[in-house]
Amino acid sequence: MNFNQLGEFGLIDILTRDTIYKPEEVIKGVGDDTAVLKVDGNKWLLFTTDLMVEGVHFVLGYSTLRQVGWKAMAVNLSDIAAMGGRPAHAVVSLAVPPRLKPSDLVELYQGMKEACEVYKVNIVGGDTVGNPERLVLNVALLGEVMAGKAVYRSGARPGDKLYVTGALGASEAGLHLLRNPELPCPKEAADYCRKAHAAPIPRVDEGGYLAGCGVSSMQDISDGLASELHHICKSSGVGCLVRQVDIPVDARVRSVAEKAGIDAVKWALFGGEDLELLFSASREVEEKISDEYTGSETICYPIGIVTDGGGVRLEQADGKIVPLDRGGYDHFRERDI
Amino acid sequence: MNFNQLGEFGLIDILTRDTIYKPEEVIKGVGDDTAVLKVDGNKWLLFTTDLMVEGVHFVLGYSTLRQVGWKAMAVNLSDIAAMGGRPAHAVVSLAVPPRLKPSDLVELYQGMKEACEVYKVNIVGGDTVGNPERLVLNVALLGEVMAGKAVYRSGARPGDKLYVTGALGASEAGLHLLRNPELPCPKEAADYCRKAHAAPIPRVDEGGYLAGCGVSSMQDISDGLASELHHICKSSGVGCLVRQVDIPVDARVRSVAEKAGIDAVKWALFGGEDLELLFSASREVEEKISDEYTGSETICYPIGIVTDGGGVRLEQADGKIVPLDRGGYDHFRERDI
Repeated sequence: MNFNQLGEFGLIDILTRDTIYKPEEVIKGVGDDTAVLKVDGNKWLLFTTDLMVEGVHFVLGYSTLRQVGWKAMAVNLSDIAAMGGRPAHAVVSLAVPPRLKPSDLVELYQGMKEACEVYKVNIVGGDTVGNPERLVLNVALLGEVMAGKAVYRSGARPGDKLYVTGALGASEAGLHLLRNPELPCPKEAADYCRKAHAAPIPRVDEGGYLAGCGVSSMQDISDGLASELHHICKSSGVGCLVRQVDIPVDARVRSVAEKAGIDAVKWALFGGEDLELLFSASREVEEKISDEYTGSETICYPIGIVTDGGGVRLEQADGKIVPLDRGGYDHFRERDI
Repeated sequence: MNFNQLGEFGLIDILTRDTIYKPEEVIKGVGDDTAVLKVDGNKWLLFTTDLMVEGVHFVLGYSTLRQVGWKAMAVNLSDIAAMGGRPAHAVVSLAVPPRLKPSDLVELYQGMKEACEVYKVNIVGGDTVGNPERLVLNVALLGEVMAGKAVYRSGARPGDKLYVTGALGASEAGLHLLRNPELPCPKEAADYCRKAHAAPIPRVDEGGYLAGCGVSSMQDISDGLASELHHICKSSGVGCLVRQVDIPVDARVRSVAEKAGIDAVKWALFGGEDLELLFSASREVEEKISDEYTGSETICYPIGIVTDGGGVRLEQADGKIVPLDRGGYDHFRERDI
C-alpha cells in the first residue's frame, strides 16, 4: 500500500483512529472543517491547522511573500467560517531556508497580519526554525461558536437545496496561469485569477451569517466542489444532484479557460482553494438567506438539491445525468505545483 | 542585518509586534511558554506550537519515528506544564517526503498517541501534505488552567530560591553521541543519554503541582538552563546567582562527558531540550513543595537564588562568581544537527 493508493483522506483515516482520550471534551474530532471542543461556559471552541510548503502549495515569485502570509491565514479562517464560527487566536510556525532575509519574514508576517486585522484574529505565539530547502508555514487557529450552533458536514437532508457563496474555478485558473505563464490572456482576467489563487478571500462573515440562518450543512471549498460534495453527502448519508449550468463561473475565468482550451466548469468542479462555502438549506431557511443578507451582494448561488441516496450526480449542460467523481485536489498526491 | 545577528529571539520580537487585534481576550501573547487566553467560564486557555524539521531537530536512524512522534508531542506538553496547566487537545501537521511509507507514518503517530495517552490529550485534527526532502512535523497544543492560576516567567522576586525539577544535560549528551557515534561509552550511560535526547519526558504532573503550591515563576528548559535563567530574570526584572555545584547532573551524563573530554556542567548549562522545569519559589512555598509531593521522588533541586539585579551570575566550583551568558541552543542559528 502506498500513498497514491491511499490518498490523503485514506491515510488520515488510518492515522487518526483512536486518538481521543477524553471523549467528554470533544464534540467533533477529525472529520470536519475544524474540531469542536467543549470548554466552560456558553461557547464551543473550534480548532484547525493548515500547513503550506513552498513549491507544493505556493511558488515564490508567482505569489509574493505577503500573499503567502495572507493565504496561510485565509485557508484556516475559511475552515472556521465553514463551521459558522468566529476566528479568534492563531499560532504561527515557520521553517525558514537560509536564502530568506529577515525582511522577507517581515513581509510574510505583514500578509498574515493584514488577514488578522480584517478578521480580528490575535497572533499569540509561534515557533521559528531553520530549514535548508524550503519555506514551510503552519498556522493553527482557534475560533469559537455558541454552544450547539456549529454547522457540520453531516446535516444535509433530502430536499434541501445546495448553494455556494460565490463563483468557482478562479483559483485553479490562476494555478494554470502559474504553470503556463506564456498563455495569452486578457490582463484583467489573468490578474483576477492569479490573485484568486495567491490571496483568496475567506468567507468568514458569510459563514457566521449562514450559521445564524440555520443552514443544515456547510464546508469550505478547499479541495474542489466535487470533492466537497462527496464529503457532505458521505457525512450526511445522502446523495445530491447538481446542475452544471447553475455552477457559477466568473466571465474572467471563462476567458482564461477558453485561451487554455479547457472547459471552465472543470476548474469550477475540481479546482481547489476557492475558499467559497458550500452549504445546504431547507426551504424555510432559504428565504431568510436571500432576503436578509447585506454583507455582500449575494451569498447564495443555488447549484442543486440534496437527494435520498443516488450518490453525487451532475446534470450536464446537455441534460444528461452522470455520476460526479470526487476528483478534487489531493494535497498529498499532488506533490509539486 | 542577518539571522545570525538577530537570532531566534530578536527575530521573533520584530515579527510579533502589533499582532493583537482583540486585546481583551489575551492575558498573555507572545513571550512566555504558551499564550494565555480568556474564554467564557472559570478557565483560561493555554495555546502553544512547536515545529520539528528532520535533520535540524532530529535524525531518523538515531531517533525512531516513534520517538520523533513522542518528542513532537513532549516539547509542547512541556510548554503547557511550564504554565502550570493541563494539556487537552492537539492538532498535528505533517509534511511527508516520498521515501516514507504509510507504515512509517503509523509508527510516527504511534509515538504521538503514546504521549497523548499518558497525558490525556486528544488529537482532534491536522493536515498532511507532501514535501520533497524532509519530514516536517508541527504540533499545536491547547491546554487549560484555572483563571488566575497560570505561572509566568515574570513572577520571580528577590529572595526567592531557584529550582529545577531534575538532572540536566542528558539531552545534550545524547546529541553529542549522535554527532560522535564512535565515542566509547558505557552502554547504559549511552542508552540513557540517547533516550533523553530522542524521547524526553515532559513534567506535566509536576508543573500542575508546582503551580498549585504557588511557585512564583516557571518555564521549561528547552533552550538550556542558562538561556532560561536569562528569560526569567529579564521577564521578572531581577538577577540571580546560581551555584555550579548545585546543578544536578546524572552520573551517566558525567561518564559520557568524561569520555568526550567535555565538562558535564557545560551540557547542563547550555544544552537544550531536557524538558525539566526551572522555577522560583518563596520560602513559604518551598516547604510545601518538598513536604507534600508524592508524584515522583523529588521535584526540587535548589540551584540558586533570585537577586535584586546583578544579572545572571554563576558561582563556579572554585567559588569565583562570574556572569553567565545565555549561550543556549538557538533553534534558528543551529541549522543542522
